Amino acid sequence: MSHPEHITILGDGQMALVLADVLCERGMPVHSVRIWGPIADHANLLRETRRSVRLPGFVLDQDVIVTTDAREALSGATLVINAIPTQFMRGVWQQVVAIVDPEVPIVSVSKGIENKTLLLPTQIVQDVLSHAFGGGACPPLCALSGPTIAAELASRMPAAMVAASESRILAERVQDLLNVSWLRIYAHDDIIGVELAGAVKNVIALAAGMLDGLGAGDNAKSALLARGLSEIARLGVANGAKIDTFFGIAGVGDLATTCFSPQGRNRTCGERLGKGESLDSILASSSSVVEGVPTSRSVIQLARRENVDMPIAFAVHGILFEDLSPEEAIRNLMSRETKFEQVG
Amino acid sequence: MSHPEHITILGDGQMALVLADVLCERGMPVHSVRIWGPIADHANLLRETRRSVRLPGFVLDQDVIVTTDAREALSGATLVINAIPTQFMRGVWQQVVAIVDPEVPIVSVSKGIENKTLLLPTQIVQDVLSHAFGGGACPPLCALSGPTIAAELASRMPAAMVAASESRILAERVQDLLNVSWLRIYAHDDIIGVELAGAVKNVIALAAGMLDGLGAGDNAKSALLARGLSEIARLGVANGAKIDTFFGIAGVGDLATTCFSPQGRNRTCGERLGKGESLDSILASSSSVVEGVPTSRSVIQLARRENVDMPIAFAVHGILFEDLSPEEAIRNLMSRETKFEQVG
Repeated sequence: MSHPEHITILGDGQMALVLADVLCERGMPVHSVRIWGPIADHANLLRETRRSVRLPGFVLDQDVIVTTDAREALSGATLVINAIPTQFMRGVWQQVVAIVDPEVPIVSVSKGIENKTLLLPTQIVQDVLSHAFGGGACPPLCALSGPTIAAELASRMPAAMVAASESRILAERVQDLLNVSWLRIYAHDDIIGVELAGAVKNVIALAAGMLDGLGAGDNAKSALLARGLSEIARLGVANGAKIDTFFGIAGVGDLATTCFSPQGRNRTCGERLGKGESLDSILASSSSVVEGVPTSRSVIQLARRENVDMPIAFAVHGILFEDLSPEEAIRNLMSRETKFEQVG
Repeated sequence: MSHPEHITILGDGQMALVLADVLCERGMPVHSVRIWGPIADHANLLRETRRSVRLPGFVLDQDVIVTTDAREALSGATLVINAIPTQFMRGVWQQVVAIVDPEVPIVSVSKGIENKTLLLPTQIVQDVLSHAFGGGACPPLCALSGPTIAAELASRMPAAMVAASESRILAERVQDLLNVSWLRIYAHDDIIGVELAGAVKNVIALAAGMLDGLGAGDNAKSALLARGLSEIARLGVANGAKIDTFFGIAGVGDLATTCFSPQGRNRTCGERLGKGESLDSILASSSSVVEGVPTSRSVIQLARRENVDMPIAFAVHGILFEDLSPEEAIRNLMSRETKFEQVG
């Protein structure tokens, strides 16, 4: 028999909401679900109305406790889910670290690479916790990822994710907690690969969106997907990930959704860039974080550090921050010296 | 300096037309391009009007010779391109084999697996030729494949393909012949992998279309793409292909286009099945070959022969030929025992 689980979700964005819904549907062994919101106005509105502007149509189960008090959120938790955007994670974790029980496992659904440190989401948690606990033992960590457009999950449309952890016990516990009729969870052991795939795919999705904005067609976008996947895999292997991870659900699966679904924020941002809009104007009009933009800075630094060839990521960075035009970037990519196809 | 090339394309379908266009644009060393059409009415109309109902809006260059006379088509050819639908290839090659020069390389763009023999396109050519030439030497063979929606290529929108051959010289010759500003060709050495990927992706695309017909969403379709890719890779490796091939342009690239582009014939057929239409009625209303339908028969036979687990391909076959409903098939796939993700 499983132990009763008290689950705390840090963050009140789209993924926090849909995971709360899954956990409520799961029922036993889940005894309680709490959501901690970092911004009081948002969280209070969510608590009162059970609705969020971030996920129109979704209604949060009455049993889910919503709070802005970290102590109320975390006391007695048996498992913590991190659903804070990557570039804000360090601040949040520094805020809550004094309250966190160092024995309680942490599952992260964030996608990105922290600027300056070049750390992945679970590495940020580890970094903050090891400083706070004096470099001692860190709780078991798990990365949960896959092709998950939140609006589809909110409608309980079918999806699949992987739960990756060095601890097989934790991966299977997360699998058991979140496997419901519309969500299939695969266990996995490559946490670096899963998090790196989830981060870099947003950069490739910016490029895919640009092709859409330029009307370049699906042949070009699919070739980009394949070559982009090779770049991600190369970077991953250089950072200690397993190559197979990139060809699974959290790799190519997530990349496909991000490049092709009209709803994706990164693809949409790329499409507006492809049509000639400036990055500043796009970001100013966007209420949510476009994770691929800061991630592209981290990715090219990682690529330089590991000496990995990533022509698409560098082209995206050039377009975002160095006045390269999308048309010029495509011409450059299409006219590179012809070669033998290398994957990974 | 390259030798003058006289190129003969067997077939007058979409791929034949767009490759003729590429070769005309390439110019030197291409000195002549001939198209052989198997059906007199079609070929004569194409010769006179330079247009085809199969590719609306496309106009064939005046320099391309169109003929139904195999001898006129093949005499003096320095390279032959096979663009005949897989299930019709044996008949055509038996017809032309007496005229073919056994020294002249053959490049195939067909996608499928021959029913009964379970042979891939270049293996069919090899089979017919080795019978005709008494088991002697076969000309060098090359498979040309990738995400290539013909209407996009006809509009000269950017695309990429791989040219796979055991002969590096032939792969690079094809690369040189077809690399133009809008088409980037990668050389490759895994002809079995490239052809198997091109065949089986049509079966996965039928499943992707069914998800569309059921309104299952992009999360589900992307998970299907990832798990389908694993099935293809498993079958490929069991048949002697290299696993990397499936994660490249002719593998995941082609699979992505086929699953996501609204234009694909196999995806469209799947969508109509998902909406409840019968296979007979769909095929009766379709002027072109839906390659995934016969290929699914071959794929499950190959999977049984090699003892490869292919739940998606078997589900598609069950829906096409065994009265399984798409809804039931999805329920079965989503409720399989939870497990560790295995790629390939």
